[in-house]
Amino acid sequence: MSDRPGAHDSSRRAGMPTGTPTVSPAERRARMVLTRVAEPGDADACTLVHGYGAEALLSSLAATPPDPTSISKLAGWADRLRELDIDEMVAAADAAASRFVCPGDPEWPTQLHDLAGLDGGQRDRRGGAPFGLWVRGAGNLQALARQSVAVVGARAATSYGEHVAGDLAIGCSVEGWTVVSGGAYGIDAAAHRGALAAERPTVCILAGGIDRLYPAGHAPMLRRILEQGCLVSEAAPGCAPSKSRFLVRNRLIAALTQGTVVVEAALRSGSLNTARWADDLFRPVMGVPGPVTSAASRGVHELLRVAALLVTAADEIIEHLSPVGTGLATRREEDPRPVDALSRETRQVLDAVPKLDSASSASIALVAGLPRPAVVDRLRFLAHAGWVDQTSSDRWCQAAGPPR
Amino acid sequence: MSDRPGAHDSSRRAGMPTGTPTVSPAERRARMVLTRVAEPGDADACTLVHGYGAEALLSSLAATPPDPTSISKLAGWADRLRELDIDEMVAAADAAASRFVCPGDPEWPTQLHDLAGLDGGQRDRRGGAPFGLWVRGAGNLQALARQSVAVVGARAATSYGEHVAGDLAIGCSVEGWTVVSGGAYGIDAAAHRGALAAERPTVCILAGGIDRLYPAGHAPMLRRILEQGCLVSEAAPGCAPSKSRFLVRNRLIAALTQGTVVVEAALRSGSLNTARWADDLFRPVMGVPGPVTSAASRGVHELLRVAALLVTAADEIIEHLSPVGTGLATRREEDPRPVDALSRETRQVLDAVPKLDSASSASIALVAGLPRPAVVDRLRFLAHAGWVDQTSSDRWCQAAGPPR
Repeated sequence: MSDRPGAHDSSRRAGMPTGTPTVSPAERRARMVLTRVAEPGDADACTLVHGYGAEALLSSLAATPPDPTSISKLAGWADRLRELDIDEMVAAADAAASRFVCPGDPEWPTQLHDLAGLDGGQRDRRGGAPFGLWVRGAGNLQALARQSVAVVGARAATSYGEHVAGDLAIGCSVEGWTVVSGGAYGIDAAAHRGALAAERPTVCILAGGIDRLYPAGHAPMLRRILEQGCLVSEAAPGCAPSKSRFLVRNRLIAALTQGTVVVEAALRSGSLNTARWADDLFRPVMGVPGPVTSAASRGVHELLRVAALLVTAADEIIEHLSPVGTGLATRREEDPRPVDALSRETRQVLDAVPKLDSASSASIALVAGLPRPAVVDRLRFLAHAGWVDQTSSDRWCQAAGPPR
Repeated sequence: MSDRPGAHDSSRRAGMPTGTPTVSPAERRARMVLTRVAEPGDADACTLVHGYGAEALLSSLAATPPDPTSISKLAGWADRLRELDIDEMVAAADAAASRFVCPGDPEWPTQLHDLAGLDGGQRDRRGGAPFGLWVRGAGNLQALARQSVAVVGARAATSYGEHVAGDLAIGCSVEGWTVVSGGAYGIDAAAHRGALAAERPTVCILAGGIDRLYPAGHAPMLRRILEQGCLVSEAAPGCAPSKSRFLVRNRLIAALTQGTVVVEAALRSGSLNTARWADDLFRPVMGVPGPVTSAASRGVHELLRVAALLVTAADEIIEHLSPVGTGLATRREEDPRPVDALSRETRQVLDAVPKLDSASSASIALVAGLPRPAVVDRLRFLAHAGWVDQTSSDRWCQAAGPPR
């Protein structure tokens, strides 16, 4: 592979002026290599690359002699570096028509830097701001992520959850919010499919390499995402989507978007991990309620009991994501009924008018507990408005067809 | 009717010493009459009786000459007083084996005084602390209400809502919390029935007179409530349950209990009115979520979005009602799985061990991205614990039957 900016330089490919200086070609290549050598989302690797550069780290790894007794993390990386066929990795990346995006590139979503210093409080230091991302697809990641929302949830979703996830994704998409999710079975797929149904781009962040359309059953959907949106991964092409990589992938979903919506989640669902990352990042965490009898909603209800915002529709999601006072959801109310326009005392009189029989104003006043002159005034008004029939000079009964 | 304390003196009937002096027999009789003359829950009537006494108010009404031109509220009351057959009302009360409970009586629930000064912000001044209640049934209202919860909701409930209301009522009842509701179709009835199924007393607050078992279809249920619990009304025996009386009745449900749970409510449901009263009284308002696709849950979701506490089970309700640090709900978590006991790096090694094939520790270390000596230690531990099979000196594969 050449050291000149080439196929993997997204700043050239996008043809846009760079805002901040991009990393040098040698540094870019070193970062690409490191996505295969260090475990994706290793907080130490992220910190070292941001602080000292990938070139320096890689040189030091290359200079590390094999030491079968060392238990340092660097020894593990050095072992991987020795085994790595860089040309093969680059060929896989090219074959997948992918690009490598680095901080400083126009396509780089700068909000990912909010992850710097966050390691999720986990013992082996997973987290941190990524030093590069593999991207594939027609969409511009930075532009798509600028106004975006994560819609995530259980693989073991119910048809209720999938229906709601699709609806919310459609609603957010048509309002110009990019739906970001993880491509998994269940809620994730329903969210991507909602965006696709609305013919809007959607972003899928994968746990393994972006050359692997995983899960295989979603390959057709993932290929459709490429047409307008993009697939994104922190792991190098060829990397398998192992369990631990799903968890660090979740932090990218939370960090890329302005807020996270959990549609369905059992108590152990991985989507709750995405919600925790969003919370650590001070991004709004939203939950969609469901039946309390449904195990698939129990994790969401726990979230809602503790801290998350309850949402039932796309406009409510957008209200939470928008600057205060903008993007307000329409207030939920039924259409007013004609009876609402009556004052409460007038309704009290109306209630006191018999339905089958007729009655005098004196008797109606007694039932209503109001003085007779006030009742007579209101009866006249009610008769005029069609609520009440005046059957003789002082006999009143409820009208057969009141105003609707 | 005699002026001596008699059948309607609950302090005698209950055989308990009175904590605070009860009202005089003449005042008690005047209050009974006023429950028929003033509209139930008229905030002005409540304030006048608490401030000046019912005797004085009744004397002044009796001295008011008929004036067909007056539109004052007092003229309406004077008209009703003139028409009232007091003996007939007392006979109806006796026939229904009801008692009239006043502030100062041992059976009086003093928490109702929290309503003093509250008129729900409504134009015609409905609200205030009641000056007496009609009670019927074997239960002692004060004792039952001391630890009680309102479980209310839509008449137009779904089977989901009725199922959950019944479950919550059973759960609260067996823990010693009296379920209070309004006896209506739908959620109210499901709540009462849950308490009855648990063989615990329940309290039903009616909008009309307690001699009228309303709605008629619930007469058998209401009679069962009488066996251990009670029926309560602010309106005199014989009063019809008119629409406006349901709204003032709701304030008693909210004020009698330590908190209100709304199970299902459409956007216009009357149960939201009960929730507003509870909120005005600084009592916890709780809501049970449901499918966002269900109109019967939309009012509850609006409550939950604004202020109410989300609850999914009886223990969560009790936690909100109990003093801080007591009555805590059990934390919602699935049973831990054996894999949770493994450290994350050990799980990373386990993930890297092939399932069908076997692999060397060097190859597993490369996949896991960890140094080989650390991987070998973990492989030995995993083999010892039954997660991994060691097929030869340095070949490892996942065990067929891992620990469960």
